[in-house]
Amino acid sequence: MPRELIRIDDPGDPRIAAYRDIRERDLVGRERRFVAEGKVVLNVLFSTARFAAESVLLRENRVAGMGELIDRVPQDVPVYVAGGAVMDAIAGFPMHRGVLAIGMRREEEGAEALIARLPERALVVALSGIANHDNMGAIFRNAAAFGADAVLMDAGCCDPLYRKAIRVSVGAALKVPFARGDSAEALVEALSESGFEILALSPQGAREIDAVTRAPRTALLLGAEGPGLPATLLDRLPSVRIGMLEDFDSLNVAAASAIALHRLWRGEV
Amino acid sequence: MPRELIRIDDPGDPRIAAYRDIRERDLVGRERRFVAEGKVVLNVLFSTARFAAESVLLRENRVAGMGELIDRVPQDVPVYVAGGAVMDAIAGFPMHRGVLAIGMRREEEGAEALIARLPERALVVALSGIANHDNMGAIFRNAAAFGADAVLMDAGCCDPLYRKAIRVSVGAALKVPFARGDSAEALVEALSESGFEILALSPQGAREIDAVTRAPRTALLLGAEGPGLPATLLDRLPSVRIGMLEDFDSLNVAAASAIALHRLWRGEV
Repeated sequence: MPRELIRIDDPGDPRIAAYRDIRERDLVGRERRFVAEGKVVLNVLFSTARFAAESVLLRENRVAGMGELIDRVPQDVPVYVAGGAVMDAIAGFPMHRGVLAIGMRREEEGAEALIARLPERALVVALSGIANHDNMGAIFRNAAAFGADAVLMDAGCCDPLYRKAIRVSVGAALKVPFARGDSAEALVEALSESGFEILALSPQGAREIDAVTRAPRTALLLGAEGPGLPATLLDRLPSVRIGMLEDFDSLNVAAASAIALHRLWRGEV
Repeated sequence: MPRELIRIDDPGDPRIAAYRDIRERDLVGRERRFVAEGKVVLNVLFSTARFAAESVLLRENRVAGMGELIDRVPQDVPVYVAGGAVMDAIAGFPMHRGVLAIGMRREEEGAEALIARLPERALVVALSGIANHDNMGAIFRNAAAFGADAVLMDAGCCDPLYRKAIRVSVGAALKVPFARGDSAEALVEALSESGFEILALSPQGAREIDAVTRAPRTALLLGAEGPGLPATLLDRLPSVRIGMLEDFDSLNVAAASAIALHRLWRGEV
Protein backbone atom coordinates (compact mmCIF):
# COMPACT_ATOMS: atom_id res chain seq x y z
CA MET A 1 0.00 0.00 0.00
CA PRO A 2 1.58 3.30 -1.02
CA ARG A 3 2.31 5.66 1.79
CA GLU A 4 -0.10 8.52 2.42
CA LEU A 5 1.65 11.89 2.20
CA ILE A 6 -0.04 14.63 4.19
CA ARG A 7 -0.11 17.97 2.44
CA ILE A 8 0.69 21.08 4.54
CA ASP A 9 -0.38 24.43 3.08
CA ASP A 10 -0.38 26.59 6.19
CA PRO A 11 2.95 27.32 7.90
CA GLY A 12 0.93 27.75 11.10
CA ASP A 13 -0.50 24.22 10.94
CA PRO A 14 -0.13 22.78 14.46
CA ARG A 15 0.89 19.38 13.06
CA ILE A 16 4.24 20.79 11.94
CA ALA A 17 4.78 23.07 14.95
CA ALA A 18 7.96 21.21 15.92
CA TYR A 19 9.64 22.34 12.69
CA ARG A 20 8.85 26.01 13.20
CA ASP A 21 11.76 28.45 13.45
CA ILE A 22 14.32 25.70 13.55
CA ARG A 23 17.20 28.11 14.02
CA GLU A 24 15.65 29.60 17.13
CA ARG A 25 14.90 26.18 18.52
CA ASP A 26 18.54 25.25 18.09
CA LEU A 27 19.35 27.82 20.72
CA VAL A 28 16.95 26.41 23.25
CA GLY A 29 19.31 23.55 23.94
CA ARG A 30 18.32 20.10 24.91
CA GLU A 31 14.69 19.41 24.59
CA ARG A 32 13.15 16.05 24.25
CA ARG A 33 12.83 16.45 20.49
CA PHE A 34 15.62 16.93 18.00
CA VAL A 35 15.72 17.86 14.33
CA ALA A 36 17.25 15.43 11.85
CA GLU A 37 18.09 16.79 8.44
CA GLY A 38 19.04 15.29 5.08
CA LYS A 39 18.47 11.98 3.37
CA VAL A 40 21.51 10.20 4.83
CA VAL A 41 20.70 11.29 8.38
CA LEU A 42 17.04 10.27 8.05
CA ASN A 43 18.09 6.88 6.73
CA VAL A 44 20.15 6.42 9.91
CA LEU A 45 17.26 7.60 12.07
CA PHE A 46 14.91 5.06 10.51
CA SER A 47 17.37 2.19 10.73
CA THR A 48 18.28 2.56 14.39
CA ALA A 49 16.32 1.37 17.37
CA ARG A 50 17.98 4.00 19.56
CA PHE A 51 15.60 6.81 18.66
CA ALA A 52 12.00 7.01 17.62
CA ALA A 53 10.71 9.57 15.13
CA GLU A 54 7.66 11.74 15.56
CA SER A 55 7.14 12.91 11.98
CA VAL A 56 8.82 13.62 8.65
CA LEU A 57 8.57 16.83 6.61
CA LEU A 58 9.60 16.88 2.96
CA ARG A 59 9.84 19.72 0.50
CA GLU A 60 7.55 18.91 -2.40
CA ASN A 61 10.32 18.83 -5.02
CA ARG A 62 12.30 16.28 -3.00
CA VAL A 63 9.55 13.67 -2.71
CA ALA A 64 10.31 11.96 -6.02
CA GLY A 65 13.80 10.86 -4.94
CA MET A 66 12.72 9.71 -1.49
CA GLY A 67 10.78 6.51 -2.29
CA GLU A 68 13.10 4.19 -0.37
CA LEU A 69 13.34 6.52 2.57
CA ILE A 70 9.57 6.94 2.76
CA ASP A 71 9.18 3.15 2.73
CA ARG A 72 11.32 2.99 5.85
CA VAL A 73 9.17 5.37 7.85
CA PRO A 74 7.01 3.42 10.31
CA GLN A 75 3.29 3.52 9.54
CA ASP A 76 2.45 5.46 12.71
CA VAL A 77 4.87 8.29 11.81
CA PRO A 78 3.16 10.89 9.59
CA VAL A 79 4.98 12.12 6.46
CA TYR A 80 4.15 15.74 5.71
CA VAL A 81 4.84 17.47 2.40
CA ALA A 82 5.00 21.22 1.82
CA GLY A 83 5.68 23.46 -1.16
CA GLY A 84 8.85 25.56 -1.21
CA ALA A 85 7.39 28.80 0.09
CA VAL A 86 5.50 27.06 2.91
CA MET A 87 8.63 25.09 3.81
CA ASP A 88 10.74 28.25 4.06
CA ALA A 89 8.04 29.96 6.12
CA ILE A 90 7.94 27.02 8.52
CA ALA A 91 11.71 26.81 8.96
CA GLY A 92 12.19 30.55 9.16
CA PHE A 93 14.93 30.55 6.54
CA PRO A 94 15.41 29.15 3.02
CA MET A 95 15.35 25.40 3.54
CA HIS A 96 16.64 24.18 0.21
CA ARG A 97 17.43 20.65 1.28
CA GLY A 98 13.96 20.17 2.64
CA VAL A 99 14.31 16.68 4.11
CA LEU A 100 13.55 16.84 7.81
CA ALA A 101 12.35 14.68 10.65
CA ILE A 102 11.63 15.22 14.31
CA GLY A 103 13.35 12.61 16.42
CA MET A 104 12.58 11.78 20.02
CA ARG A 105 15.18 11.30 22.72
CA ARG A 106 14.75 8.44 25.08
CA GLU A 107 15.70 8.88 28.67
CA GLU A 108 19.47 9.25 28.51
CA GLU A 109 21.33 6.50 30.23
CA GLY A 110 24.18 7.48 32.52
CA ALA A 111 27.83 6.88 31.69
CA GLU A 112 28.12 4.01 34.20
CA ALA A 113 25.16 2.18 32.71
CA LEU A 114 26.55 2.53 29.19
CA ILE A 115 30.01 1.37 30.26
CA ALA A 116 28.47 -1.64 32.02
CA ARG A 117 27.04 -2.99 28.76
CA LEU A 118 30.15 -2.57 26.62
CA PRO A 119 31.81 -5.71 25.25
CA GLU A 120 35.07 -7.16 26.60
CA ARG A 121 36.98 -5.58 23.73
CA ALA A 122 35.90 -1.99 23.43
CA LEU A 123 37.04 1.38 22.17
CA VAL A 124 35.54 4.43 23.86
CA VAL A 125 35.92 8.13 23.10
CA ALA A 126 35.71 10.32 26.22
CA LEU A 127 35.23 14.06 25.70
CA SER A 128 35.84 16.98 28.03
CA GLY A 129 34.65 20.49 27.22
CA ILE A 130 33.92 19.98 23.51
CA ALA A 131 31.53 22.91 23.14
CA ASN A 132 31.61 23.38 19.37
CA HIS A 133 28.91 21.56 17.39
CA ASP A 134 31.04 21.14 14.27
CA ASN A 135 33.76 19.45 16.30
CA MET A 136 31.22 17.32 18.15
CA GLY A 137 29.63 16.15 14.90
CA ALA A 138 33.01 15.48 13.29
CA ILE A 139 34.23 13.47 16.30
CA PHE A 140 31.09 11.29 16.16
CA ARG A 141 31.65 10.74 12.44
CA ASN A 142 35.21 9.61 13.12
CA ALA A 143 34.09 7.47 16.07
CA ALA A 144 31.66 5.64 13.77
CA ALA A 145 34.23 5.24 11.00
CA PHE A 146 36.72 3.62 13.34
CA GLY A 147 34.33 1.44 15.27
CA ALA A 148 34.17 3.21 18.61
CA ASP A 149 31.64 1.49 20.86
CA ALA A 150 30.61 4.61 22.77
CA VAL A 151 31.19 8.32 23.25
CA LEU A 152 31.19 9.65 26.81
CA MET A 153 30.93 13.37 27.53
CA ASP A 154 31.39 15.58 30.55
CA ALA A 155 29.03 18.41 31.49
CA GLY A 156 31.12 20.88 29.48
CA CYS A 157 30.29 19.20 26.18
CA CYS A 158 27.59 20.46 23.83
CA ASP A 159 24.62 18.41 22.68
CA PRO A 160 25.43 15.86 19.95
CA LEU A 161 21.74 15.92 18.96
CA TYR A 162 21.83 19.60 18.06
CA ARG A 163 20.74 19.91 14.43
CA LYS A 164 24.13 20.93 13.09
CA ALA A 165 26.06 18.35 15.10
CA ILE A 166 23.87 15.56 13.71
CA ARG A 167 24.30 16.90 10.18
CA VAL A 168 28.10 17.18 10.44
CA SER A 169 28.21 13.68 11.91
CA VAL A 170 26.33 12.41 8.82
CA GLY A 171 24.03 10.62 11.25
CA ALA A 172 26.76 9.06 13.40
CA ALA A 173 25.41 10.98 16.42
CA LEU A 174 22.30 8.80 16.06
CA LYS A 175 24.35 5.65 15.63
CA VAL A 176 27.15 5.62 18.20
CA PRO A 177 25.81 5.20 21.76
CA PHE A 178 26.64 8.12 24.03
CA ALA A 179 26.18 9.13 27.64
CA ARG A 180 27.08 11.98 29.95
CA GLY A 181 28.90 12.16 33.23
CA ASP A 182 29.33 15.14 35.51
CA SER A 183 33.03 15.62 34.99
CA ALA A 184 35.98 14.23 33.08
CA GLU A 185 37.27 12.96 36.42
CA ALA A 186 34.06 11.00 37.00
CA LEU A 187 34.24 9.49 33.50
CA VAL A 188 37.87 8.52 34.02
CA GLU A 189 37.05 6.87 37.31
CA ALA A 190 34.15 4.90 35.87
CA LEU A 191 36.25 3.77 32.90
CA SER A 192 39.19 2.78 35.11
CA GLU A 193 36.97 0.73 37.35
CA SER A 194 35.77 -1.16 34.30
CA GLY A 195 39.27 -2.05 33.19
CA PHE A 196 39.79 0.59 30.52
CA GLU A 197 43.22 1.95 29.77
CA ILE A 198 42.68 5.65 29.26
CA LEU A 199 44.91 7.47 26.81
CA ALA A 200 44.83 11.24 27.30
CA LEU A 201 45.61 13.00 24.01
CA SER A 202 47.67 16.14 24.43
CA PRO A 203 50.29 18.04 22.42
CA GLN A 204 52.55 17.38 25.43
CA GLY A 205 51.73 13.67 25.57
CA ALA A 206 54.47 11.34 26.76
CA ARG A 207 54.23 8.80 23.94
CA GLU A 208 53.70 9.13 20.22
CA ILE A 209 50.32 7.63 19.27
CA ASP A 210 52.09 5.37 16.74
CA ALA A 211 53.99 3.72 19.57
CA VAL A 212 50.88 2.69 21.48
CA THR A 213 49.86 -0.95 21.71
CA ARG A 214 46.19 -0.91 22.25
CA ALA A 215 44.73 -2.59 25.29
CA PRO A 216 41.57 -4.68 24.79
CA ARG A 217 39.57 -1.97 26.54
CA THR A 218 40.86 1.43 25.51
CA ALA A 219 39.44 4.91 25.98
CA LEU A 220 40.75 7.95 24.12
CA LEU A 221 40.29 11.10 26.20
CA LEU A 222 40.06 14.38 24.27
CA GLY A 223 39.83 17.94 25.59
CA ALA A 224 38.91 21.18 23.88
CA GLU A 225 41.48 23.05 21.82
CA GLY A 226 42.98 25.84 23.80
CA PRO A 227 42.40 24.78 27.39
CA GLY A 228 43.06 21.12 26.66
CA LEU A 229 42.62 18.52 29.37
CA PRO A 230 42.79 19.42 33.08
CA ALA A 231 46.36 19.11 34.40
CA THR A 232 45.08 16.93 37.26
CA LEU A 233 44.06 14.31 34.69
CA LEU A 234 47.09 14.66 32.44
CA ASP A 235 49.36 14.12 35.42
CA ARG A 236 47.96 10.76 36.38
CA LEU A 237 46.92 9.21 33.06
CA PRO A 238 49.08 7.72 30.30
CA SER A 239 49.28 10.51 27.75
CA VAL A 240 49.81 10.34 24.01
CA ARG A 241 50.64 12.93 21.38
CA ILE A 242 50.37 13.17 17.62
CA GLY A 243 53.75 14.00 16.14
CA MET A 244 53.79 17.08 13.93
CA LEU A 245 55.99 19.97 12.90
CA GLU A 246 57.46 21.50 16.02
CA ASP A 247 56.62 25.08 15.17
CA PHE A 248 52.95 24.32 14.68
CA ASP A 249 50.71 24.85 17.66
CA SER A 250 48.22 22.00 17.45
CA LEU A 251 45.64 20.22 15.39
CA ASN A 252 41.93 20.79 15.43
CA VAL A 253 40.43 18.35 17.96
CA ALA A 254 38.32 16.59 15.33
CA ALA A 255 41.38 16.08 13.11
CA ALA A 256 43.30 14.78 16.11
CA SER A 257 40.46 12.35 16.87
CA ALA A 258 40.60 11.07 13.28
CA ILE A 259 44.32 10.33 13.46
CA ALA A 260 44.22 8.80 16.93
CA LEU A 261 41.12 6.66 16.31
CA HIS A 262 42.51 5.43 13.01
CA ARG A 263 45.69 4.41 14.88
CA LEU A 264 43.79 2.67 17.67
CA TRP A 265 41.51 0.93 15.22
CA ARG A 266 44.51 -0.28 13.19
CA GLY A 267 46.48 -1.22 16.27
CA GLU A 268 44.08 -3.87 17.42
CA VAL A 269 45.62 -6.50 19.61
CA MET B 1 58.02 55.07 20.01
CA PRO B 2 54.55 53.79 20.89
CA ARG B 3 52.34 53.05 17.96
CA GLU B 4 49.72 55.63 16.97
CA LEU B 5 46.21 54.15 17.04
CA ILE B 6 43.76 55.90 14.76
CA ARG B 7 40.33 56.33 16.23
CA ILE B 8 37.32 55.64 13.98
CA ASP B 9 33.98 57.05 15.12
CA ASP B 10 32.02 57.01 11.88
CA PRO B 11 31.15 53.61 10.34
CA GLY B 12 31.08 55.44 6.98
CA ASP B 13 34.70 56.60 7.32
CA PRO B 14 36.36 55.88 3.94
CA ARG B 15 39.55 54.70 5.65
CA ILE B 16 37.82 51.57 6.87
CA ALA B 17 35.71 51.00 3.74
CA ALA B 18 37.37 47.64 3.11
CA TYR B 19 35.89 46.26 6.35
CA ARG B 20 32.35 47.29 5.54
CA ASP B 21 29.73 44.57 5.32
CA ILE B 22 32.24 41.79 5.57
CA ARG B 23 29.65 39.08 5.12
CA GLU B 24 28.49 40.50 1.82
CA ARG B 25 32.04 40.90 0.63
CA ASP B 26 32.64 37.26 1.36
CA LEU B 27 30.21 36.46 -1.39
CA VAL B 28 31.97 38.56 -3.98
CA GLY B 29 34.68 35.96 -4.31
CA ARG B 30 38.24 36.59 -5.08
CA GLU B 31 39.22 40.18 -4.95
CA ARG B 32 42.67 41.50 -4.48
CA ARG B 33 42.03 42.10 -0.79
CA PHE B 34 41.18 39.54 1.84
CA VAL B 35 40.00 39.76 5.44
CA ALA B 36 42.13 38.23 8.17
CA GLU B 37 40.48 37.73 11.53
CA GLY B 38 41.69 36.91 15.03
CA LYS B 39 44.91 37.36 16.93
CA VAL B 40 46.54 34.11 15.80
CA VAL B 41 45.76 34.74 12.15
CA LEU B 42 47.04 38.33 12.31
CA ASN B 43 50.24 37.12 13.93
CA VAL B 44 50.74 34.83 10.94
CA LEU B 45 49.94 37.63 8.52
CA PHE B 46 52.55 39.89 10.10
CA SER B 47 55.21 37.22 10.25
CA THR B 48 55.00 36.06 6.64
CA ALA B 49 56.54 37.71 3.63
CA ARG B 50 53.95 36.10 1.38
CA PHE B 51 51.29 38.74 1.91
CA ALA B 52 51.30 42.43 2.70
CA ALA B 53 48.69 44.08 4.90
CA GLU B 54 46.80 47.25 4.11
CA SER B 55 45.44 48.09 7.57
CA VAL B 56 44.37 46.72 10.94
CA LEU B 57 41.05 47.34 12.72
CA LEU B 58 40.68 46.56 16.42
CA ARG B 59 37.67 46.70 18.68
CA GLU B 60 38.46 49.10 21.49
CA ASN B 61 38.14 46.53 24.27
CA ARG B 62 40.68 44.24 22.57
CA VAL B 63 43.50 46.77 22.29
CA ALA B 64 44.90 46.10 25.77
CA GLY B 65 45.82 42.49 25.00
CA MET B 66 47.28 43.24 21.57
CA GLY B 67 50.55 44.99 22.45
CA GLU B 68 52.81 42.38 20.89
CA LEU B 69 50.68 42.12 17.80
CA ILE B 70 50.57 45.88 17.34
CA ASP B 71 54.36 45.99 17.62
CA ARG B 72 54.57 43.62 14.67
CA VAL B 73 52.50 45.81 12.37
CA PRO B 74 54.77 47.64 9.91
CA GLN B 75 54.91 51.40 10.46
CA ASP B 76 53.27 52.15 7.12
CA VAL B 77 50.21 50.02 7.94
CA PRO B 78 47.61 52.07 9.85
CA VAL B 79 46.03 50.58 13.00
CA TYR B 80 42.43 51.71 13.42
CA VAL B 81 40.44 51.38 16.64
CA ALA B 82 36.66 51.53 16.95
CA GLY B 83 34.18 51.24 19.81
CA GLY B 84 31.83 48.25 19.92
CA ALA B 85 28.81 49.86 18.29
CA VAL B 86 30.88 51.42 15.50
CA MET B 87 32.65 48.09 14.93
CA ASP B 88 29.36 46.21 14.60
CA ALA B 89 28.02 48.88 12.25
CA ILE B 90 31.10 48.59 10.06
CA ALA B 91 31.05 44.79 9.89
CA GLY B 92 27.30 44.59 9.44
CA PHE B 93 26.89 42.05 12.23
CA PRO B 94 28.01 41.70 15.88
CA MET B 95 31.78 41.43 15.60
CA HIS B 96 32.69 40.31 19.10
CA ARG B 97 36.19 39.17 18.32
CA GLY B 98 37.04 42.50 16.78
CA VAL B 99 40.59 41.80 15.61
CA LEU B 100 40.75 42.31 11.86
CA ALA B 101 43.17 43.15 9.11
CA ILE B 102 42.93 43.65 5.38
CA GLY B 103 45.55 41.60 3.58
CA MET B 104 46.65 42.03 0.01
CA ARG B 105 47.12 39.23 -2.47
CA ARG B 106 50.15 39.27 -4.65
CA GLU B 107 49.87 38.12 -8.20
CA GLU B 108 49.19 34.41 -7.83
CA GLU B 109 51.90 32.22 -9.23
CA GLY B 110 50.85 29.31 -11.41
CA ALA B 111 51.10 25.69 -10.30
CA GLU B 112 54.10 25.01 -12.57
CA ALA B 113 56.06 27.93 -11.14
CA LEU B 114 55.37 26.81 -7.59
CA ILE B 115 56.30 23.21 -8.33
CA ALA B 116 59.53 24.39 -9.98
CA ARG B 117 60.78 25.93 -6.77
CA LEU B 118 59.98 23.01 -4.44
CA PRO B 119 62.88 21.22 -2.75
CA GLU B 120 64.14 17.78 -3.78
CA ARG B 121 62.24 16.21 -0.89
CA ALA B 122 58.74 17.57 -0.94
CA LEU B 123 55.21 16.79 0.16
CA VAL B 124 52.41 18.39 -1.84
CA VAL B 125 48.64 18.34 -1.30
CA ALA B 126 46.68 18.48 -4.57
CA LEU B 127 42.97 19.27 -4.35
CA SER B 128 40.17 18.72 -6.83
CA GLY B 129 36.73 20.24 -6.35
CA ILE B 130 37.05 21.17 -2.68
CA ALA B 131 34.29 23.80 -2.67
CA ASN B 132 33.58 24.02 1.06
CA HIS B 133 35.46 26.70 2.99
CA ASP B 134 35.53 24.76 6.25
CA ASN B 135 37.11 21.79 4.53
CA MET B 136 39.55 24.03 2.66
CA GLY B 137 40.65 25.75 5.88
CA ALA B 138 40.95 22.46 7.75
CA ILE B 139 43.04 20.90 4.97
CA PHE B 140 45.43 23.85 5.07
CA ARG B 141 45.70 23.52 8.84
CA ASN B 142 46.59 19.84 8.47
CA ALA B 143 49.00 20.60 5.62
CA ALA B 144 50.86 23.04 7.88
CA ALA B 145 50.87 20.64 10.84
CA PHE B 146 52.45 17.88 8.79
CA GLY B 147 54.91 19.97 6.86
CA ALA B 148 53.40 20.03 3.40
CA ASP B 149 55.45 22.27 1.10
CA ALA B 150 52.55 23.39 -1.07
CA VAL B 151 48.84 23.04 -1.77
CA LEU B 152 47.74 22.89 -5.41
CA MET B 153 44.11 23.38 -6.40
CA ASP B 154 42.08 22.88 -9.54
CA ALA B 155 39.51 25.37 -10.81
CA GLY B 156 36.75 23.63 -8.86
CA CYS B 157 38.28 24.55 -5.51
CA CYS B 158 37.10 27.49 -3.44
CA ASP B 159 39.30 30.37 -2.33
CA PRO B 160 41.60 29.57 0.61
CA LEU B 161 41.75 33.30 1.35
CA TYR B 162 38.02 33.54 2.00
CA ARG B 163 37.56 34.92 5.52
CA LYS B 164 36.20 31.72 7.01
CA ALA B 165 38.74 29.47 5.32
CA ILE B 166 41.60 31.53 6.74
CA ARG B 167 40.00 31.43 10.20
CA VAL B 168 39.44 27.67 10.17
CA SER B 169 43.02 27.20 8.94
CA VAL B 170 44.23 29.19 11.99
CA GLY B 171 46.35 31.18 9.55
CA ALA B 172 47.81 28.20 7.69
CA ALA B 173 46.22 29.47 4.46
CA LEU B 174 48.60 32.42 4.77
CA LYS B 175 51.55 30.17 5.56
CA VAL B 176 51.52 27.21 3.19
CA PRO B 177 52.26 28.28 -0.41
CA PHE B 178 49.45 27.50 -2.82
CA ALA B 179 48.71 27.78 -6.52
CA ARG B 180 45.95 26.95 -8.95
CA GLY B 181 45.84 24.92 -12.14
CA ASP B 182 43.00 24.54 -14.60
CA SER B 183 42.19 20.95 -13.86
CA ALA B 184 43.22 18.04 -11.67
CA GLU B 185 44.60 16.42 -14.82
CA ALA B 186 46.85 19.44 -15.48
CA LEU B 187 48.10 19.39 -11.86
CA VAL B 188 48.81 15.66 -12.08
CA GLU B 189 50.73 16.13 -15.31
CA ALA B 190 52.83 18.97 -13.91
CA LEU B 191 53.60 17.00 -10.74
CA SER B 192 54.49 13.84 -12.69
CA GLU B 193 56.86 15.75 -14.93
CA SER B 194 58.63 17.01 -11.82
CA GLY B 195 59.16 13.54 -10.42
CA PHE B 196 56.31 13.41 -7.92
CA GLU B 197 54.65 10.16 -7.05
CA ILE B 198 50.97 11.00 -6.85
CA LEU B 199 48.82 9.09 -4.38
CA ALA B 200 45.13 9.41 -5.13
CA LEU B 201 43.10 9.00 -1.94
CA SER B 202 39.84 7.16 -2.43
CA PRO B 203 37.60 4.84 -0.38
CA GLN B 204 38.27 2.32 -3.18
CA GLY B 205 42.04 2.85 -3.11
CA ALA B 206 44.22 -0.14 -3.98
CA ARG B 207 46.59 0.13 -1.01
CA GLU B 208 46.06 0.95 2.64
CA ILE B 209 47.77 4.26 3.45
CA ASP B 210 49.72 2.51 6.24
CA ALA B 211 51.38 0.27 3.65
CA VAL B 212 52.77 3.17 1.62
CA THR B 213 56.48 3.87 1.58
CA ARG B 214 56.76 7.50 0.82
CA ALA B 215 58.77 8.61 -2.20
CA PRO B 216 61.03 11.64 -1.74
CA ARG B 217 58.63 13.71 -3.79
CA THR B 218 55.09 12.76 -2.92
CA ALA B 219 51.76 14.39 -3.73
CA LEU B 220 48.51 13.45 -2.01
CA LEU B 221 45.54 13.99 -4.32
CA LEU B 222 42.17 14.60 -2.65
CA GLY B 223 38.74 15.01 -4.22
CA ALA B 224 35.47 16.27 -2.81
CA GLU B 225 33.28 14.00 -0.73
CA GLY B 226 30.49 12.57 -2.77
CA PRO B 227 31.81 12.82 -6.30
CA GLY B 228 35.39 11.96 -5.29
CA LEU B 229 38.18 12.01 -7.84
CA PRO B 230 37.51 11.65 -11.58
CA ALA B 231 37.63 7.99 -12.65
CA THR B 232 40.08 8.90 -15.42
CA LEU B 233 42.59 9.89 -12.75
CA LEU B 234 41.87 7.06 -10.34
CA ASP B 235 42.41 4.55 -13.14
CA ARG B 236 45.93 5.64 -13.94
CA LEU B 237 47.34 6.78 -10.59
CA PRO B 238 48.47 4.72 -7.61
CA SER B 239 45.52 4.89 -5.25
CA VAL B 240 45.41 4.62 -1.48
CA ARG B 241 42.59 4.17 1.01
CA ILE B 242 42.15 4.72 4.72
CA GLY B 243 40.96 1.53 6.36
CA MET B 244 37.76 1.87 8.35
CA LEU B 245 34.65 -0.04 9.32
CA GLU B 246 33.19 -1.63 6.22
CA ASP B 247 29.66 -0.47 6.76
CA PHE B 248 30.67 3.17 7.05
CA ASP B 249 30.53 5.20 3.88
CA SER B 250 33.50 7.52 4.13
CA LEU B 251 35.34 10.10 6.15
CA ASN B 252 35.09 13.83 5.81
CA VAL B 253 37.79 14.96 3.38
CA ALA B 254 39.55 17.11 5.99
CA ALA B 255 39.66 14.19 8.44
CA ALA B 256 41.00 11.98 5.66
CA SER B 257 43.70 14.56 4.89
CA ALA B 258 44.74 14.58 8.56
CA ILE B 259 45.17 10.81 8.67
CA ALA B 260 46.93 10.56 5.32
CA LEU B 261 49.27 13.53 5.88
CA HIS B 262 50.18 12.26 9.34
CA ARG B 263 51.06 8.92 7.75
CA LEU B 264 53.10 10.47 4.97
CA TRP B 265 54.88 12.79 7.39
CA ARG B 266 55.70 9.86 9.69
CA GLY B 267 56.66 7.61 6.80
CA GLU B 268 59.58 9.72 5.71
CA VAL B 269 62.20 7.80 3.83
